[in-house]
Amino acid sequence: MKKFINDPQAFVPEMLQGLALANPDTLTYVPEFNLILRADAPHHDRVSIIQGSGSGHEPAHVMLVGDGMLDGACPGDVFAAPPTEYVLEAARRLASDKGVLLLVNNYTGDKMAFEMAEELADAEGIKVRTLFINDDVAVEDSLYTIGRRGVAGNFFVIKAVGAAAAAGADLDEIVRIGEKVNAATRTMGVALTACTPPAKGTPLFDIGDDEMEVGVGIHGEPGRRRTTMTSANEIVDELLEAIIPDLPFSSGDDVALMVNGLGGTPISELYLLYGIAHARLAEKGISIGRNYVGSYCTALDMVGTSVTLVKLDDEIRSLLEAPAHIPVRIF
Amino acid sequence: MKKFINDPQAFVPEMLQGLALANPDTLTYVPEFNLILRADAPHHDRVSIIQGSGSGHEPAHVMLVGDGMLDGACPGDVFAAPPTEYVLEAARRLASDKGVLLLVNNYTGDKMAFEMAEELADAEGIKVRTLFINDDVAVEDSLYTIGRRGVAGNFFVIKAVGAAAAAGADLDEIVRIGEKVNAATRTMGVALTACTPPAKGTPLFDIGDDEMEVGVGIHGEPGRRRTTMTSANEIVDELLEAIIPDLPFSSGDDVALMVNGLGGTPISELYLLYGIAHARLAEKGISIGRNYVGSYCTALDMVGTSVTLVKLDDEIRSLLEAPAHIPVRIF
Repeated sequence: MKKFINDPQAFVPEMLQGLALANPDTLTYVPEFNLILRADAPHHDRVSIIQGSGSGHEPAHVMLVGDGMLDGACPGDVFAAPPTEYVLEAARRLASDKGVLLLVNNYTGDKMAFEMAEELADAEGIKVRTLFINDDVAVEDSLYTIGRRGVAGNFFVIKAVGAAAAAGADLDEIVRIGEKVNAATRTMGVALTACTPPAKGTPLFDIGDDEMEVGVGIHGEPGRRRTTMTSANEIVDELLEAIIPDLPFSSGDDVALMVNGLGGTPISELYLLYGIAHARLAEKGISIGRNYVGSYCTALDMVGTSVTLVKLDDEIRSLLEAPAHIPVRIF
Repeated sequence: MKKFINDPQAFVPEMLQGLALANPDTLTYVPEFNLILRADAPHHDRVSIIQGSGSGHEPAHVMLVGDGMLDGACPGDVFAAPPTEYVLEAARRLASDKGVLLLVNNYTGDKMAFEMAEELADAEGIKVRTLFINDDVAVEDSLYTIGRRGVAGNFFVIKAVGAAAAAGADLDEIVRIGEKVNAATRTMGVALTACTPPAKGTPLFDIGDDEMEVGVGIHGEPGRRRTTMTSANEIVDELLEAIIPDLPFSSGDDVALMVNGLGGTPISELYLLYGIAHARLAEKGISIGRNYVGSYCTALDMVGTSVTLVKLDDEIRSLLEAPAHIPVRIF
């Protein structure tokens, strides 16, 4: 296993410890519950936003905690939902007078943990709602979901509800915005290699030297088809041809375009893919109001990419443009 | 070859095209000379800063062009120096009344191209100086250098001279600052895998499933030793034990600490490494005034990392803290 780790079981806590040491003024690490919280949260004049999911998708979501984004992240172990009591503890610690929103990608394990935590938090008098994200067009049901999976597009939901919360919106309004952005967002990915969970020590699935998995999930779940590797042009075409008709996106639309890396893909290739996607959309009369190129939501060390489109209107654009301050930065 | 590419020969221009399409307001792509320039450069009240090198190190250096950093980047093909005439053309297009600084990592091919370009530009009446960066402590001479190699630490030189140029410093002052930051910066890296140049299509060297290359260069050059993979703790210790005595860094020093990914390493592992390095330095009484965790200077898709320390004083700290605006961002 070609990884920088000590004890595979300690992979997540050691990563969170490093993240906290790198951000001593802004983040608090709560090792007993595996939480990363804003050091200055909760703000009682704002709804608190919490995202939970398995680990292994970094920078999502522990590195998205900060002003204008998440107030806290509640990660599980690699590719595993956090325990209900950890989610509940996050809600307790971030309970604000305006309420708490739990953001969850639509996976069965996460859904169970968060719905249970919502019930328990509610019983304790915490004002709380849960919002599920399901932007992946690849498959309708999957290995770990009933319904569509939540993948890289969750960035846009987090950014939008984070901006609305920072502006003082109330919980109902924030839920409305989150649902609206989720409904306007579509993603599909492709893997060229499998990923290797630290505790497993070997690749999660076999894939040939000339093969790719189209429609892959962010835990290495099967997608639409296993096929022979093709050119960057053909890969972008296949992803866009799945995404565009699904909403649908149409000529005259203004969109946000994300080209996301799945962990092992260098940024040079992501910009190459971006150029192709940009040109294809322009040919179709779709204009790109905002663009995002980088590794936002990964599957450990998987070599792969996903493309996300978000249909913009004035409200969504302005929420995406709002300032935010999170640990991931280049200086 | 598990890459998102079309024609391997077109890898660099297609990447640059994507970068330009993603940044239409701030960057200009000059395909005839493979240049990425600030759209609003040159500014005649500022020294223009140009970095050249082979491609394959992204985001270095084409994605570091922007206000407060580089005015232009002059990349060659993958791992190859740019032609002299391309460097000369960059100097012509960015010639300002206050002069031009050419930044070059210390590799023989780049050194020749840039020294020749400097002579030709000078003969044309352009006020120009060249500064060589050599932060890598791994080896004294190497496969492609006489003297030490320039690697990820060049980020700090770029950031500092970029800030000084934005503040209106003159060329002599900027050269002084660049030399000072270079002299205060030390780096060493380790590779767990080789990288695969698109035009070659196969890994640049063989490395066993349980091996790592300590002191690797950013083109896959051999380092200090090939050895059996060890834990993250032991790897950080070996890198710091090479870096710390070299300057030397001592108890009471304030430093910038960068944990850099070499292209195929996910950010989760970089934060894990950061936590170890932070703790080790604290034990030695060295305080971390600024930290940098991410992939700043890569070797294509290589799985690996490097650690950089910069000894801070008030002047360097303030130049590193100055605002800058470049394409790489997370929103």
